[in-house]
Amino acid sequence: MSSSLCYESKTPMEECIMSGGNDQLSYTKNSTYQGRVIEVTRPLINEAISEKFLAECLLSGRTICIADLGCSIGPNTFISMQNIIDSITSMYKSIHGQNKTTPFTFQVFFSDHPSNDFNTLFKSLPQDRQYHASGVPGSFYGRLFPPASLHFVHSSFALHWLSKLPEELMDKNSLAWNKGRIDYTNAREEVAEAYASQRRKDLDCFLLARAEELVPQGLMMIVVPARPNGVSHSHILFNILNDILGSCLMEMAKRGIVREESVNSCNLPMYVASIEEIEEAIKRNGSFSIEKMQILPSVSTTDAGLSPQGTSSGIRAIMEGIIKEHFGFEILDELFELYTKKLEENYHNIVSAKVCNLVLMLKRNS
Amino acid sequence: MSSSLCYESKTPMEECIMSGGNDQLSYTKNSTYQGRVIEVTRPLINEAISEKFLAECLLSGRTICIADLGCSIGPNTFISMQNIIDSITSMYKSIHGQNKTTPFTFQVFFSDHPSNDFNTLFKSLPQDRQYHASGVPGSFYGRLFPPASLHFVHSSFALHWLSKLPEELMDKNSLAWNKGRIDYTNAREEVAEAYASQRRKDLDCFLLARAEELVPQGLMMIVVPARPNGVSHSHILFNILNDILGSCLMEMAKRGIVREESVNSCNLPMYVASIEEIEEAIKRNGSFSIEKMQILPSVSTTDAGLSPQGTSSGIRAIMEGIIKEHFGFEILDELFELYTKKLEENYHNIVSAKVCNLVLMLKRNS
Repeated sequence: MSSSLCYESKTPMEECIMSGGNDQLSYTKNSTYQGRVIEVTRPLINEAISEKFLAECLLSGRTICIADLGCSIGPNTFISMQNIIDSITSMYKSIHGQNKTTPFTFQVFFSDHPSNDFNTLFKSLPQDRQYHASGVPGSFYGRLFPPASLHFVHSSFALHWLSKLPEELMDKNSLAWNKGRIDYTNAREEVAEAYASQRRKDLDCFLLARAEELVPQGLMMIVVPARPNGVSHSHILFNILNDILGSCLMEMAKRGIVREESVNSCNLPMYVASIEEIEEAIKRNGSFSIEKMQILPSVSTTDAGLSPQGTSSGIRAIMEGIIKEHFGFEILDELFELYTKKLEENYHNIVSAKVCNLVLMLKRNS
Repeated sequence: MSSSLCYESKTPMEECIMSGGNDQLSYTKNSTYQGRVIEVTRPLINEAISEKFLAECLLSGRTICIADLGCSIGPNTFISMQNIIDSITSMYKSIHGQNKTTPFTFQVFFSDHPSNDFNTLFKSLPQDRQYHASGVPGSFYGRLFPPASLHFVHSSFALHWLSKLPEELMDKNSLAWNKGRIDYTNAREEVAEAYASQRRKDLDCFLLARAEELVPQGLMMIVVPARPNGVSHSHILFNILNDILGSCLMEMAKRGIVREESVNSCNLPMYVASIEEIEEAIKRNGSFSIEKMQILPSVSTTDAGLSPQGTSSGIRAIMEGIIKEHFGFEILDELFELYTKKLEENYHNIVSAKVCNLVLMLKRNS
């Protein structure tokens, strides 16, 4: 794993399958890629669970509360939560002796939008779990928990979704009217700025809420797609894939299959913030210190075994809900056939595009 | 409302629709009857929220945690939880002044079996709620929460469901083999004793778990169907209705529509404990004092507007899941047609049967 803030030059296509959900409000994840990410971030959790953190946990009672924000339906959330519990237990034993049982009770809060399938999540909870499980429906851009009630917050591949779309994207009188596109990648500067502005507001809300919910010295690990400073939107794989999808919809509009008006009013509620934008938000908030900030190692396209067809299927799983809502389900097959074709044509762009996933370990100041 | 432990002699038929769920594991409730029960129990909550209780809440932090066990999908659970919050807020204001805002944050845990439809519950959470909402999947016969983490536990029309069926009911070599019946009402004494024994074990598990989860001085309100001391099982409406359902199944077995073997192996996992049995369980546990024990006033059959047809539909809603599992959905229409007919024939028994719903306010000893 790279240990400093360098940008990995390998450019796989997994970005497409790791960053979304079944629809706009759900953060379903691909378990294979996520599985790898969980493995890679595990040592970071171990490092972060310090003696001081444990002492703080003991101070605030013997129940350690952990939350996964954007948990989806599992199983990755179960693995991540178990890793955090294992790290804490392990640190306790390394201080007090391997034979000592921890005095802690763990309470895990699985949180996602109310539209997430909590029924499936609850039915697949590990039988042998050593924690009290709870589901918390709501947007993580608002308060979800009582003040100073959480010890560890985890959020993986969820924070690139916006809380809502900037209104000016739909306003014909605005320079940010996003005519003929569904994202900001190759759009006018004003469109990207509208997205960036919403991202700023959302990040501020997220950090403010978490600052109130975390205990002093509490930890927060975030994994999120990011844009390396100085790299333009149009060089980021995440964005390229969205942009090609938009161009397919426009082609279908020209052929009269969908209405151009519908393309104009469809905008994807996601934004890949630059590393600088993320750092600035943390600085603006002021309640957190950055304990660790690292770019996740990439996996090559060959390793990931992803073809244009595979990428297309991955993106379909993520975008289907949004597309259906705007254009009806009837267009799905034709759209994604066209999309696969366009991905094949643009394959050289895709394999050379930039992929950057940031992992952050933040600590709540005392 | 009766203020002592007298038995109300009015005998409505709502018992049938207030005590079950869509299936064996869910506790769906009839909102009309439940709405009345909520109104009737409200003053009891107000009485129980004392100055001392508030002081204890402040001692253990400023977050007051409330749990509804057997919450189903709403809306009754939302009304009950709001009543508890209103009572606490009201008591705080009566001490500190009406203009004072409470320093409390409320966290409400909605708990039911993992098979409960939490998705529906979460989507219908009141928009204007002033609490953090959480869903907790699991059986209340085991631990659901960290130690000393709850201030108020509520459970309404859920505790008459057993955690499991006594095994001897299915054992042909046992005197408790429940041949030709689906409940204990008119069965051999050994059958009722097997049910009662499971009920004892379950009540012990329930009280033990709650004793660990409640803070000292924490409160628990339970509403549960009960049998007045000295009244036999066969005089309780709840039991009469189950027994008639069993006799319908046996009649269908004789006609060759269902297998008699299937009737023998089908047993309803519910038991109406006597008031004495409930009191004994509380005494055995030893961690709670009975602050209040009251029988809910009955509503007359006429007031409830229940016909044999209405009763049949109510029971169908509760039992459909269990019946489907044992006999297949094909028999449902015929079974409940026959059931309605038998209810008509037995109407005099039904209107004169005994209904007794107990409300208990327990306090966790310090």
